[in-house]
Amino acid sequence: MDQIEPRTLKGFRDFLPGPAQVRLRAIETIRSVFQQFGFLPLETPTLEYADVLTGKYGDEGDKLMYRFKDQGGRDVAMRYDLTVPLARVVAQYADLPKPFRRYQIAPVWRADNTQKGRYREFWQCDADVVGSSSMLADAEMVLLYEKILTALGIKNFQIKVNNRKVLEGIIESVGIPEEERQNALRWIDKWEKVGEKGVQAEFSRVKYIFQKDKLFSLLGSVASWESQKQLLRSELRESLVGMEGLQELDELNAILDASSLKTGIIDLTLARGLDYYTGTIFEVVLPDKPEFGSVGGGGRYDGLIGRFTGKDMPAVGMSVGLDRLLAAMSELGLEQGSRASAKVFVALLDEDLRTETFQLVNELRSAGIPSEMSYEATKLDKQLKYADKLGIQFAVLYGKKEQEAGTMVLKDLEKREQKEVARSALLQELQS
Amino acid sequence: MDQIEPRTLKGFRDFLPGPAQVRLRAIETIRSVFQQFGFLPLETPTLEYADVLTGKYGDEGDKLMYRFKDQGGRDVAMRYDLTVPLARVVAQYADLPKPFRRYQIAPVWRADNTQKGRYREFWQCDADVVGSSSMLADAEMVLLYEKILTALGIKNFQIKVNNRKVLEGIIESVGIPEEERQNALRWIDKWEKVGEKGVQAEFSRVKYIFQKDKLFSLLGSVASWESQKQLLRSELRESLVGMEGLQELDELNAILDASSLKTGIIDLTLARGLDYYTGTIFEVVLPDKPEFGSVGGGGRYDGLIGRFTGKDMPAVGMSVGLDRLLAAMSELGLEQGSRASAKVFVALLDEDLRTETFQLVNELRSAGIPSEMSYEATKLDKQLKYADKLGIQFAVLYGKKEQEAGTMVLKDLEKREQKEVARSALLQELQS
Repeated sequence: MDQIEPRTLKGFRDFLPGPAQVRLRAIETIRSVFQQFGFLPLETPTLEYADVLTGKYGDEGDKLMYRFKDQGGRDVAMRYDLTVPLARVVAQYADLPKPFRRYQIAPVWRADNTQKGRYREFWQCDADVVGSSSMLADAEMVLLYEKILTALGIKNFQIKVNNRKVLEGIIESVGIPEEERQNALRWIDKWEKVGEKGVQAEFSRVKYIFQKDKLFSLLGSVASWESQKQLLRSELRESLVGMEGLQELDELNAILDASSLKTGIIDLTLARGLDYYTGTIFEVVLPDKPEFGSVGGGGRYDGLIGRFTGKDMPAVGMSVGLDRLLAAMSELGLEQGSRASAKVFVALLDEDLRTETFQLVNELRSAGIPSEMSYEATKLDKQLKYADKLGIQFAVLYGKKEQEAGTMVLKDLEKREQKEVARSALLQELQS
Repeated sequence: MDQIEPRTLKGFRDFLPGPAQVRLRAIETIRSVFQQFGFLPLETPTLEYADVLTGKYGDEGDKLMYRFKDQGGRDVAMRYDLTVPLARVVAQYADLPKPFRRYQIAPVWRADNTQKGRYREFWQCDADVVGSSSMLADAEMVLLYEKILTALGIKNFQIKVNNRKVLEGIIESVGIPEEERQNALRWIDKWEKVGEKGVQAEFSRVKYIFQKDKLFSLLGSVASWESQKQLLRSELRESLVGMEGLQELDELNAILDASSLKTGIIDLTLARGLDYYTGTIFEVVLPDKPEFGSVGGGGRYDGLIGRFTGKDMPAVGMSVGLDRLLAAMSELGLEQGSRASAKVFVALLDEDLRTETFQLVNELRSAGIPSEMSYEATKLDKQLKYADKLGIQFAVLYGKKEQEAGTMVLKDLEKREQKEVARSALLQELQS
């Protein structure tokens, strides 16, 4: 048989034990915040009928989607995000209690350019509320970010909030022609990356006439929401959609203001790339690690479920990009906890003692102390080196001498201390 | 835009909140047993280069594998089990500490016939020891099954144990020609399904001459391992592989005998379908639900890693089939725990009170009480019906009247009781 080269696909990663422990702990933290907020778990398949996913993310999305024909000739696609499958679920099971508040933590796949530090398989952690247009639901999304980032030990973060309708209102009110509004939105979306000057440059090339100064004064930095609101209220008064967005954004701001937590910042230049957003939009950045871009985002998508049912249903959601967040946390030195699973390593000092040692390690496990043993009575040095490499804190030595004396040697591999304990006292020593 | 029919692919499933909670809890239980045994988590990609996976599972496996060309023209395949990716990882990262003891809980994909009650996307929970040929590792696999099934509340289960080398020795010693041994193994593998008579029927059609009676007397039920061992020791004495297997099986049996747990049963008719097994094999069945077949299996595969490195490395693993296990548990009435995430539902009685109600629900969450609130001040009846439908135990009512009095109404939706509590006493009431 031919020998096969062991290798991974570009953009796909193995998570070896150390990083995998970190990921699992982060996922558990995020899951527990979702559960604390009363969100219910949902799982959807990795593969969907292709037409369920295509045409929802823009042309770019359709291009980057993993699609193929399955054994039955069906046109299938791998999950591209968690929002469209949720919309499909809500449409498919009409009797789900509403509002349907669900979370999902799962991988998604995009055949993206890996040179931008992007992966082709990455995890999203999403929470969504379907069936309510109340701004309380939008406010909960902001709070979820707060609680999750705080629970992960991140202190410095910004949650930017905007509303697509306000943006549309601004674009409309400065006289940008209808067929150019999508482009205008895309340029504004680059603000974070290229700055006001960069966005100005994009607009300087257009052929149509519009109120450019007004556009930039309306988008510019919001010193105080109260004064900005007054300005917008007068400037957008003829835009129905703009006034509706303004009302929503102000309502959301009031709810967040009343809550004790206050990191939601209104940023009118926030646009978000995806096609399906219709109202509130969010994005989370880490000011200490701006190069990672957004580590989360989301928004309202009141039209998406209607793509399946023909009838619109309000919905809002938030998503945490686990991979970018963990990469940033790693650089910030925020990873914590043990790499090891076991707390105790039981050495095997003599092949004659192996069943007895096996019983001992199982006793420890039954007492709730994660443990493992050496399978072979190799040199003690080698055994302890293995335990140390794995980051296991304690080692127990039990040889013929200890058997006779009814004792064990308990080594603390971290503190480099050791003591003799009675066999009967071992559990107590380790549980303390 | 066209309306798209919301639907799932055959063999793929959505897990709505109730079943998803059950799955998550089971996964957490299994994970905690793996961690208790000191196994380390590993995550591998969903997609692999196709040649990493093909040719490892037999012709059937290659046929059922989801394969396609990606955007870069690479021949890729979706994970078919967790064992071959592990072998690839061990070959790829030569400096992993050995023994490498890892677990992985993840979905795999097989385009199988769904009429047999099989799914095309299903989860495996695997633990493996790579780099040791000690029977202590094999014994740990049996103990893992014990602990996991017990932790899940399953009392009646059988862990069948056999050794491929013993089977090979038997097949060799009764004079079955070499080129027919693979077929013979396949027929023996059907024993559980078709019984001894059925296997006899398969062998009655062969053209070659062999000691049929001896074959069936050696395979037949093992009343006592001690007597069976004596019989095999004399009958297999001229088969090198057979004697090696016998030695291993006897050693494993002795270790299990010495441990307090004893549900490993030697069953010489157990053969396991997969190509890569080389020694010990396991299979777990639930005698109360035989129609589910095996809910777990595994074994030794000392040759698989060599397919990548050219150099054999001993390895043994166990796998729990989560989906079949959960289906069986559901029929046995063994699912437990709440469907709900939230413990408390806070009703919204008046739109004027919404920010105050929002603050209240966030107080509860901060105190570690999973909670949600109504987003709209609809009829109280409707709100409580929603909470009840979700299985939330408590409801808190806070209206203008309660605001004035500084109280709240706490309803126990399960016991159908309610009482008035002071606002300041609410947390304490709910935490008790």
